[in-house]
Amino acid sequence: MPASYAYLGPEGTFTEVALRTLPETATRELIPMVSVPAALDAVRGGEVEAAFVPIENSVEGGITTTLDELVAGEPLMIYREVLLSITFALLVRPGTKLSEIKTVTAHPAAQPQVRNWMKNHLPDVIWESAASNADGARLVQEGRYDAAFAGEFAAERYGLEPLETEIHDAENAQTRFVLVGKPARPAAPTGADKTSVVVWQRDDHPGALLELLQEFAVRGVNLMLLQSRPTGEGIGNYCFAIDAEGHIADRRVGEALMGLKRRCPQVRFLGSYPRAEVDPQSVRTPEAGTSDGEFAAASDWLARRQDGRF
Amino acid sequence: MPASYAYLGPEGTFTEVALRTLPETATRELIPMVSVPAALDAVRGGEVEAAFVPIENSVEGGITTTLDELVAGEPLMIYREVLLSITFALLVRPGTKLSEIKTVTAHPAAQPQVRNWMKNHLPDVIWESAASNADGARLVQEGRYDAAFAGEFAAERYGLEPLETEIHDAENAQTRFVLVGKPARPAAPTGADKTSVVVWQRDDHPGALLELLQEFAVRGVNLMLLQSRPTGEGIGNYCFAIDAEGHIADRRVGEALMGLKRRCPQVRFLGSYPRAEVDPQSVRTPEAGTSDGEFAAASDWLARRQDGRF
Amino acid sequence: MPASYAYLGPEGTFTEVALRTLPETATRELIPMVSVPAALDAVRGGEVEAAFVPIENSVEGGITTTLDELVAGEPLMIYREVLLSITFALLVRPGTKLSEIKTVTAHPAAQPQVRNWMKNHLPDVIWESAASNADGARLVQEGRYDAAFAGEFAAERYGLEPLETEIHDAENAQTRFVLVGKPARPAAPTGADKTSVVVWQRDDHPGALLELLQEFAVRGVNLMLLQSRPTGEGIGNYCFAIDAEGHIADRRVGEALMGLKRRCPQVRFLGSYPRAEVDPQSVRTPEAGTSDGEFAAASDWLARRQDGRF
Amino acid sequence: MPASYAYLGPEGTFTEVALRTLPETATRELIPMVSVPAALDAVRGGEVEAAFVPIENSVEGGITTTLDELVAGEPLMIYREVLLSITFALLVRPGTKLSEIKTVTAHPAAQPQVRNWMKNHLPDVIWESAASNADGARLVQEGRYDAAFAGEFAAERYGLEPLETEIHDAENAQTRFVLVGKPARPAAPTGADKTSVVVWQRDDHPGALLELLQEFAVRGVNLMLLQSRPTGEGIGNYCFAIDAEGHIADRRVGEALMGLKRRCPQVRFLGSYPRAEVDPQSVRTPEAGTSDGEFAAASDWLARRQDGRF
Repeated sequence: MPASYAYLGPEGTFTEVALRTLPETATRELIPMVSVPAALDAVRGGEVEAAFVPIENSVEGGITTTLDELVAGEPLMIYREVLLSITFALLVRPGTKLSEIKTVTAHPAAQPQVRNWMKNHLPDVIWESAASNADGARLVQEGRYDAAFAGEFAAERYGLEPLETEIHDAENAQTRFVLVGKPARPAAPTGADKTSVVVWQRDDHPGALLELLQEFAVRGVNLMLLQSRPTGEGIGNYCFAIDAEGHIADRRVGEALMGLKRRCPQVRFLGSYPRAEVDPQSVRTPEAGTSDGEFAAASDWLARRQDGRF
Repeated sequence: MPASYAYLGPEGTFTEVALRTLPETATRELIPMVSVPAALDAVRGGEVEAAFVPIENSVEGGITTTLDELVAGEPLMIYREVLLSITFALLVRPGTKLSEIKTVTAHPAAQPQVRNWMKNHLPDVIWESAASNADGARLVQEGRYDAAFAGEFAAERYGLEPLETEIHDAENAQTRFVLVGKPARPAAPTGADKTSVVVWQRDDHPGALLELLQEFAVRGVNLMLLQSRPTGEGIGNYCFAIDAEGHIADRRVGEALMGLKRRCPQVRFLGSYPRAEVDPQSVRTPEAGTSDGEFAAASDWLARRQDGRF
Repeated sequence: MPASYAYLGPEGTFTEVALRTLPETATRELIPMVSVPAALDAVRGGEVEAAFVPIENSVEGGITTTLDELVAGEPLMIYREVLLSITFALLVRPGTKLSEIKTVTAHPAAQPQVRNWMKNHLPDVIWESAASNADGARLVQEGRYDAAFAGEFAAERYGLEPLETEIHDAENAQTRFVLVGKPARPAAPTGADKTSVVVWQRDDHPGALLELLQEFAVRGVNLMLLQSRPTGEGIGNYCFAIDAEGHIADRRVGEALMGLKRRCPQVRFLGSYPRAEVDPQSVRTPEAGTSDGEFAAASDWLARRQDGRF
Repeated sequence: MPASYAYLGPEGTFTEVALRTLPETATRELIPMVSVPAALDAVRGGEVEAAFVPIENSVEGGITTTLDELVAGEPLMIYREVLLSITFALLVRPGTKLSEIKTVTAHPAAQPQVRNWMKNHLPDVIWESAASNADGARLVQEGRYDAAFAGEFAAERYGLEPLETEIHDAENAQTRFVLVGKPARPAAPTGADKTSVVVWQRDDHPGALLELLQEFAVRGVNLMLLQSRPTGEGIGNYCFAIDAEGHIADRRVGEALMGLKRRCPQVRFLGSYPRAEVDPQSVRTPEAGTSDGEFAAASDWLARRQDGRF
């Protein structure tokens, strides 16, 4: 397996910054790719060990390109997630003053985060879209625009200076990224894990979503995300990408997944991996009756009853 | 183990008739006992192999004495059930005419089944209670009463003749009896089985009954009987005697029982045994996703995912 | 309406003591009846204003005679409940010593409460059953037995003296009694009320019990008692007597009852009345979203939306 | 109110074709807008009577721009929906042959529908994105590209001819459009209606999604679509856009909506309107116990019980 990670490029974007928070990137080649499908195809084709792509952000929700790539095609698995707070810097060529800015650029996804700030500070400026925030910075460097919204980290790379930093209309704006590889044994549970899965409903069985959720609830497994995606078989046909608390090695999670597997025509396991948000308060202890110990005790009790040992 | 069965006596009652429908009784000593507790204590004390007692009838509901004996004390298990239709004969000394009957007797439990018939045919007769229907017949033999309501089978034993048979106010009046022994391995599944269990709720958790029922529902296990019984710890404290379709060896039943075991402070397994009502229509095939084959496939799927084999 | 209450007699029993805790009994004639059906028939026949009968005790559970009388026949309603702690006194003729007691009597229902005490203090005494505890006391007065277990209050009436009081094997032994009348408008809510109802399941719909309980749960109505009773239509056919927290005038309770009415072939409303156990801790405030105010606000919101007013 | 509809332009797209299936468009001015927000702002600002925009397609799922605009800002309501099958034509200047095509253009959303067709028929052609399919056709007319994928209806407008029609990689590819106006009284129920609503969960209450779905299920209301959208308050915070069968004037739907209103910090009613798919088989009769007649009967029953009338 080649010691390299693909990621959604170009260089100098939030994706690269998030990727570099993973310690092992120090010893791996990091290869920017032009699109999420390209990055994931590099994994499927064995050209790289893994790919690092955004999967959810707090403004746009699930990144549908990434979800759809994981839902279909040859199976892949998520091994890690990274959460990155998204704030922008206004980058200019050294010496440019705010009052001199007539044109500004950035990737369209930046807009919801800087719109209000622009109304207040750059009301009459002309906005044009760039292919990426890094590309916007490059275009400023080249003199095509007066300023670009980008991560502060992009300033140095493009010889720009941040005129303003920490720009963010919404508090708590974050993007979640995942490291995706070919299927293999998930990392061992850490006690604060997350399990991702995609489930399809039976055609003849509307309202089955409630039943699917009950497979989790009856075993005390809490859901963190539920995202519907079209199956491509006509309007109203959806599968559900679900993130649940816990690890496939946790017995409550394993039993819930088996329940889904029995109930659904198709289930795709997308991985169990450590949760990025390490706030200890957000890690719940299993509810009464759902710990591994209680599962083991119940299993033992059942075996003895089946055997006539009391 | 002594080759004998205790049963709720005396001889000549419906209980004995029901018991004799079991083929093995031909080769066993059948010992009438004065009460249900006495019969079950004979099992617990090792004096008999098993005891045969009524547990439910369609007029009175659950027989609380039997339920309470199974719920508390040293564990016992149900191995068989027998359903008997209850219709009465009016037994008289040979030669007695209907118009000559002034007094009639039977066990009080017979009353709901003969009340209307008496109104129509013996409106002015005096009713007195007997300790059992068989005892009533004996008292008619001795001349203490003119007639007794009892099973037609009691006529011969007491030298009486049935003046009328098939007396029953309610259609479908039935009593269910169970054969109870010390805990051992349940008989193998027949495909039409029933599992009996008693569950206690957590004190601090009102409304938990719904959760208990969901442990069954989510695995597609149908309930046949739910009977609340006081725990003896003050008004409003109940445990639940539950009969469910299926056998403890069925994986859907086993998983549901483990769910109860995890959720409840106490669960008592009372046995898995063939259902007496052999109406093929009442034997449902497991609902989609709950057969043993589907459980095994899901189990295998989970093991492969936990292992990284796809 | 005659100013009299019937009650399950005879005089001098726990039932009478419980009845006299109701203030209005000071101005009413209290008429002992020979049985629960007799007492309730006196209400149905208009001979008395109401009848006072036991409905549940912590040792035996639901009193099936009372439940079955309320479930069937002309509708009746519960207007009050009384909880009475049950402890026994050992009543003897004045001067009798414990060592002189050879025979003892009481109603069979007393046995579970005095059995252990007898083992310790009267190990060799002969027990015989009486028709009621009061009748047992009378038989001691007449010299037929040496001692009777009865309420201490029965001593004076029968010229006996309590040799021992506060006898009770089980702590918290209580009996619940209800005052039953013809249907009328329930008393106004007190904030700590209880609603009693009987529901029948659809024949073709096994497993519907879960659905019935969900009608309560989804509206945040907590259940206090669920008791199955046979419908008389063959084994396995049950209706359910349910006690729920709250009053029919509470909107969450009303909506739940309408849900039952829509789902079930038959629902019998048995009354909304103040809860006897006035422990303030056992009175929960409605869970979030289920108060009358929240129902009214939601109703108003819906009306405006239906009307196009925002 | 001005007799005009805004729609997502430009002219000559599938949106316009779908809009023109509404009979009243014959007498209204139809105004193309540059974006969904622009179209909806025209409604909010009172410049047009209504706006017609895509909301869901079978390849991409929910159109997030439209959903997010409906979820936030001044309330709007959906009054109609239109389903349109999406198939493409390959438009060229008259006389162009397939073998002469070197460059092709269309809106990026067209790609998933024509990708396979291109692989087979135009493997070596260069694809460039256009701002809309109509714009792509215009660019072909101007000679900038050799061919455009667009609706066949666009040929005439731009003086092109369809070289190939009925191009669609996925069968059943459809887009759903909605007509959106200011809040007003919904149209009367037709018997085959749909209700759209957005609900927010309580922060402190993970797992509440199951409870929300039960508010529908317990009243027999079937869900057709559930789409999560970020609330903008940080990763993992979602609201749910839900389409349910039935009309707000149906009592089962009204009661379910009130349940949501009570349970959720915020509910936004987005309208009740006729379902576009008129397949009679997809219109279910209400399940037992959930028709308006049964609701009315239960309501009447409750009022009588509350009043003491039996």
